[in-house]
Amino acid sequence: MTRPSSVPPPVTAVLDASSRWLPARLGEVEELLRGAIGEHGETLGGDAAATLAAGGKRLRPMLVLLCAGPEGDAEAVRAAAAIELVHMATLVHDDVLDDAPLRRGLPTVAATSGRDRAVATGDLLFSRAFALLADAGDRRAVALLADASVALARGELAQRRDAFDLGVDEERYLSRCALKTARLFECACLLGRDDEALREFGAAIGLAFQLLDDVLDVSGPPERTGKARGTDLLDGTVTLPLIEAAKSDPSIREADLHGLDPASAEVLCDRIAATGALERVRARALAMVAEAKQALERARFEPEQRQLLTLVADGVVQRYS
Amino acid sequence: MTRPSSVPPPVTAVLDASSRWLPARLGEVEELLRGAIGEHGETLGGDAAATLAAGGKRLRPMLVLLCAGPEGDAEAVRAAAAIELVHMATLVHDDVLDDAPLRRGLPTVAATSGRDRAVATGDLLFSRAFALLADAGDRRAVALLADASVALARGELAQRRDAFDLGVDEERYLSRCALKTARLFECACLLGRDDEALREFGAAIGLAFQLLDDVLDVSGPPERTGKARGTDLLDGTVTLPLIEAAKSDPSIREADLHGLDPASAEVLCDRIAATGALERVRARALAMVAEAKQALERARFEPEQRQLLTLVADGVVQRYS
Repeated sequence: MTRPSSVPPPVTAVLDASSRWLPARLGEVEELLRGAIGEHGETLGGDAAATLAAGGKRLRPMLVLLCAGPEGDAEAVRAAAAIELVHMATLVHDDVLDDAPLRRGLPTVAATSGRDRAVATGDLLFSRAFALLADAGDRRAVALLADASVALARGELAQRRDAFDLGVDEERYLSRCALKTARLFECACLLGRDDEALREFGAAIGLAFQLLDDVLDVSGPPERTGKARGTDLLDGTVTLPLIEAAKSDPSIREADLHGLDPASAEVLCDRIAATGALERVRARALAMVAEAKQALERARFEPEQRQLLTLVADGVVQRYS
Repeated sequence: MTRPSSVPPPVTAVLDASSRWLPARLGEVEELLRGAIGEHGETLGGDAAATLAAGGKRLRPMLVLLCAGPEGDAEAVRAAAAIELVHMATLVHDDVLDDAPLRRGLPTVAATSGRDRAVATGDLLFSRAFALLADAGDRRAVALLADASVALARGELAQRRDAFDLGVDEERYLSRCALKTARLFECACLLGRDDEALREFGAAIGLAFQLLDDVLDVSGPPERTGKARGTDLLDGTVTLPLIEAAKSDPSIREADLHGLDPASAEVLCDRIAATGALERVRARALAMVAEAKQALERARFEPEQRQLLTLVADGVVQRYS
């Protein structure tokens, strides 16, 4: 349930399939991101700049732009940059919480500059997101992003509260994922276009994205995911693979998450995998993607737009499968 | 330079002098704050509720309401609540920072259980502030608050970067205070009314507020300020009393802030006080308040409004003097 920034989303496939407008717009988003961070260069030091360079694949901005379509304007580009700034802010703050040494295989801001600077860096990225939207004067966008940010923080708090609790059930897990991950995907789609079908699309692929991420935490391989197997378990985060596995192998529910070390976390990963839970959770994620595509059918698009959104939907569950 | 949440600003005097509209509006602000926090009760647990109850004196909301005046509307009340939510968020995040692993240059006792939740709680308060303003649809208010939040984070980063550096001079100190404290006071006034004179008023009393706070950190007494003398010194924060003292007693510049413990920090406080630096800094703060009042002369007000703003200005430097 740590966020899957180390996992390359299917951006390359989408860009390959796209005509020129999408890469051009994504380039404008990068310009805005560099501007938002660069103008505070002297105080940010390398912190946020490093976060920017470490990159991620700009999946959320891409969703904004794809939903806005080729006729999308400067406001879509600005909203795309703003949502990525919020996403980056939460990553920086997550790393403070998790004491994470590495993200995407690179040292985190918290590790290199200290936790105190990381908190302020996250606050700065967050503030810049709203400053950017306020410049555009888009009331609806501010409301969408603020509400999604509230949901993110609530999801984060729920995850902390539930930590090490093996009584967390599927319903609770899913509602946490909805807050912590799916809402920002949903927000990305709605920032692109106000359309109930797109809201459902975003929510479904966001949830699928998180499920697959939680599968990858158990399955690895670390050289692809950029983090050790069982990182969630070590953080005490109970995810669906663990919940599913405990159904077939009740002894798993007796595991003492507090007592785990990296080696025993890997052993627990193997026990989870042995129950077939990973295949079952992956199947759930695939079903969500199918739902997402059905929602897409109800929205009106240019053919290219529909094709690219379908590629994104497929991509969130095709990572390393 | 830690924020003076424990120091009662002169709110009581202002309320005593005010006719009924101000207490009524402040009551509406409290309602909004409770609503913003209460509706997330289940995830916030006691964290933000405790922050709300711990209170502070709502100095920034009061500035919004006073600048808006008796004719101020629901948007002023909402802006007043929003700025207090941002202020609360920064206090919560400051507490995270002060639990940093490298406090005073030494590893601290391992993380308190509260730190991770505090980051998310601060993020939630912050997000709620923007959600509240977005509901009101006030583009100007969102822009003002977002820009002030950027300034706050930059000020925080500057303070962390300058920590333990006795080469920090007055200019650098003042620019840090402008970012970290004065900008939010300025923002409060502008949220109340768009008026250059009020911007100057807010900036001047904000700076004076911080200067006096930094005096109180050295002078105490702890039973009034709610924190030990020399807390800033122990955090490595170089403030104006120290900079001023080093002018008359250059040996102070040789102090090793990294090597301080609470007892030696108190001794350093005594050495600073012995130079007369506290009186000089207090005089600077009083001069800023005089400037603030001059700015006030240039703005048009109801007589009561001017009287109450003057009380606020006097109050920021009359704490325990």
